[in-house]
Amino acid sequence: MSDLDSAIVYAKEHQEEFLEDLISYLRISSVSTLPEHEPDMQRAAKWTADQLLEFGFESVAVMPTSGHPVVYGEWLKAGTDVPTILFYGHYDVQPPDPLDLWISEPFEPQVRGDNIFARGASDMKGQIVAHLKAVESIIRTSSLPINLKYLIEGEEEIGSPNLGAFIQENRTLLSCNLCLNGDSNILAPDTPSITFALRGLAYFEIRLQGTAGDLHSGVFGGTVDNPAIVLSKLIAGMRDEHGRITLPGFYDHVRPLTDTDRVEVASMPDAWWLEQAGANVLFGEQGFTATERATARPTLDVNGMVSGFTGEGSKTVLPARAMAKISMRLVPDQQPEMIRSSLEAYLNSKAPPTVTWELEQLASCQPAIVERDSDAVRAAKQALTAVWEVEPVFTRQGGTVPVVGMMQELLGVDSLMLGFGLPDDNLHAPNEKLHLPNFHRGVETYIRFMHESANINS
Amino acid sequence: MSDLDSAIVYAKEHQEEFLEDLISYLRISSVSTLPEHEPDMQRAAKWTADQLLEFGFESVAVMPTSGHPVVYGEWLKAGTDVPTILFYGHYDVQPPDPLDLWISEPFEPQVRGDNIFARGASDMKGQIVAHLKAVESIIRTSSLPINLKYLIEGEEEIGSPNLGAFIQENRTLLSCNLCLNGDSNILAPDTPSITFALRGLAYFEIRLQGTAGDLHSGVFGGTVDNPAIVLSKLIAGMRDEHGRITLPGFYDHVRPLTDTDRVEVASMPDAWWLEQAGANVLFGEQGFTATERATARPTLDVNGMVSGFTGEGSKTVLPARAMAKISMRLVPDQQPEMIRSSLEAYLNSKAPPTVTWELEQLASCQPAIVERDSDAVRAAKQALTAVWEVEPVFTRQGGTVPVVGMMQELLGVDSLMLGFGLPDDNLHAPNEKLHLPNFHRGVETYIRFMHESANINS
Repeated sequence: MSDLDSAIVYAKEHQEEFLEDLISYLRISSVSTLPEHEPDMQRAAKWTADQLLEFGFESVAVMPTSGHPVVYGEWLKAGTDVPTILFYGHYDVQPPDPLDLWISEPFEPQVRGDNIFARGASDMKGQIVAHLKAVESIIRTSSLPINLKYLIEGEEEIGSPNLGAFIQENRTLLSCNLCLNGDSNILAPDTPSITFALRGLAYFEIRLQGTAGDLHSGVFGGTVDNPAIVLSKLIAGMRDEHGRITLPGFYDHVRPLTDTDRVEVASMPDAWWLEQAGANVLFGEQGFTATERATARPTLDVNGMVSGFTGEGSKTVLPARAMAKISMRLVPDQQPEMIRSSLEAYLNSKAPPTVTWELEQLASCQPAIVERDSDAVRAAKQALTAVWEVEPVFTRQGGTVPVVGMMQELLGVDSLMLGFGLPDDNLHAPNEKLHLPNFHRGVETYIRFMHESANINS
Repeated sequence: MSDLDSAIVYAKEHQEEFLEDLISYLRISSVSTLPEHEPDMQRAAKWTADQLLEFGFESVAVMPTSGHPVVYGEWLKAGTDVPTILFYGHYDVQPPDPLDLWISEPFEPQVRGDNIFARGASDMKGQIVAHLKAVESIIRTSSLPINLKYLIEGEEEIGSPNLGAFIQENRTLLSCNLCLNGDSNILAPDTPSITFALRGLAYFEIRLQGTAGDLHSGVFGGTVDNPAIVLSKLIAGMRDEHGRITLPGFYDHVRPLTDTDRVEVASMPDAWWLEQAGANVLFGEQGFTATERATARPTLDVNGMVSGFTGEGSKTVLPARAMAKISMRLVPDQQPEMIRSSLEAYLNSKAPPTVTWELEQLASCQPAIVERDSDAVRAAKQALTAVWEVEPVFTRQGGTVPVVGMMQELLGVDSLMLGFGLPDDNLHAPNEKLHLPNFHRGVETYIRFMHESANINS
């Protein structure tokens, strides 16, 4: 029996024990946002590190940050001919509120049918345990075919405020050929999928100031400009009636979709989008499907805006200020800095002298893509096909995964999104669940992926 | 000595007593918005009614409303050949806060130099007492040359919520040929003025709904429209770059300004408007001065707008709703209902199918004008010229005086604004004052106005 087969057999024979370990991990209420869970955060970090120590990992450490600690571990005995893969995950979970909507207790995992219900089951302790058990299955039967590092943070659910600094300070320690990000899902229990591209983000706040203070619209209406109207005109000019963004140079670095892209990437029909969005009619850039517009094309949205009096009733104020939060979703090869320049050029040319304006960039994240014909994607595809007995579909994701941008920017490596959650797992909601058949398929997929990865160009 | 001269001599000989009566009125802290001042409201109403009883008025009554009572009184012995004039005023005052900024106590009137300092001195107990003392001066020396009614309400500072119903229910009692509204001012101590026109108001709230609920801008951005952008486009299209309102038919009933209008009406220079507004640059409809734009031309302003997330930081929401409060200042002969139709027509033709919209009218007030060549204005002009020894200037006011609209709509009469406050009287602010030489000139002006008014066509 090959090393691969031995590991798979081990995994199949230890499904009960794997589930027990998952349950013990899920019992730890590691809610990162609530200070009273500080001891639970420490326990969850220690639980994770203990697993790595048990497998003979080196340099296993619970490393401090300004917030919750990062669990690091490495196993580098596979030699220099094979790649080093960094597994990223997070041991923290969302708060379980509202508690009264849970059928079973959020931190008392309960198996009902094919699912285990608990906070963090899918997001993402299930994915971490699946990968740890894949490692265990290999190590107990042979030896890891690749070099492996773990970075398991404790602050993903609060926006990873200290992760960038941690990666920056530990660039050598974390150096690798590829990041395997387990914080992901597949399309359906029988439809394995690989998310190979994520959109980026450039998020701005624009603040306009007209007069020094609010005025009475009866006394002054007609004498001075109205910053709410000026802001409206500026926003109105950012997008044309065909849904195309009109900021200068906005599309200059957008990689066009090829015919192959359009065939190979899974697409949801309009009816699906209408239902998901709760919309009566869709709208977006002409010439693209809704799925393409949501994942492979850049967008511009007003996320919020406010000016003047917004309470009940009528107040005859002529406002002095107006503010809008405006963000763009970016696709390869747009960069947040380019978009900032584009927006600044627009405001410089269009904002009238009746207002002064300030632009603040509140968030930015590069778009990410792993080429579908790369070794990493091929390895994932072969692993998924072997386990599910059907080829995975390719998907792009409209949102950002900030850590993917950090890995690209700070370590210079691509991230492969490979996890086994499902779209209906109730992430961040009551009755979060994990589909157990998928959990066990996930273990096998990770085992196979590690074997296939030995061929990734290191 | 003529009846007029006798009355004027009486007034000059009784200035001390008039001031004492004013002080006793100002000592009553009739703050309409604070429930603890309920007894003071009753005292102020009784004080006012007692004056009328003392002068031999008939049907004097403190009449209940759903809120604070109205003081009514009438003197109708002048016969049917002369007009009936209704004097409008309010006995309530603004709260005195912030108390620590008052130099003397707000309800302990103090004379310093030419001014008396007290809450309500200028707004508007001083104007009421000036008119009462004009009546006293005539009645103690001869007889009123016109028929006179008083309507002194107690809720002006809280928006006159019950006045419309009161007037409606007492239309016969209040019937008259002209309303004399004392809640007004002149431009400067040496510059008497007559406000002959007020702008009207049509105030709306527009609510747009896109999807059923807020969405994630990463997941859905590109698939559905954004109501904040739709609202911005709608607002942007309401006014062109020359400050002209583009709603269909908006200007159809605007009475053009004649050359005479432009010469006869007082105008403030741009520098004055810049300083008053705290603006770096003025803006408005081309072809008109700032004063004309603020008083004699209609305007459209966004008074407030809000959509999505407006707190600190970045939240990647694609909002489901957007709201704007939009109001238009109207000039003769625009009517609020016409403007509503105009806005509805605009929304019907411009709002895209990606949103639904609701329009709610929150306030409306007709514009008002008393012709400058009318008997009423001529009487006021002659009275002011005789007292100040300089002709008054004509002014238009940009804001509304809701009671003027009510008088027009419910009683079918024009209102002449004739009061003697000054722009720097600190209305609604600490250290409210009344200029005493103006108070006494006001008494004489009202005496002369009543005599001149005998010639108004009744």
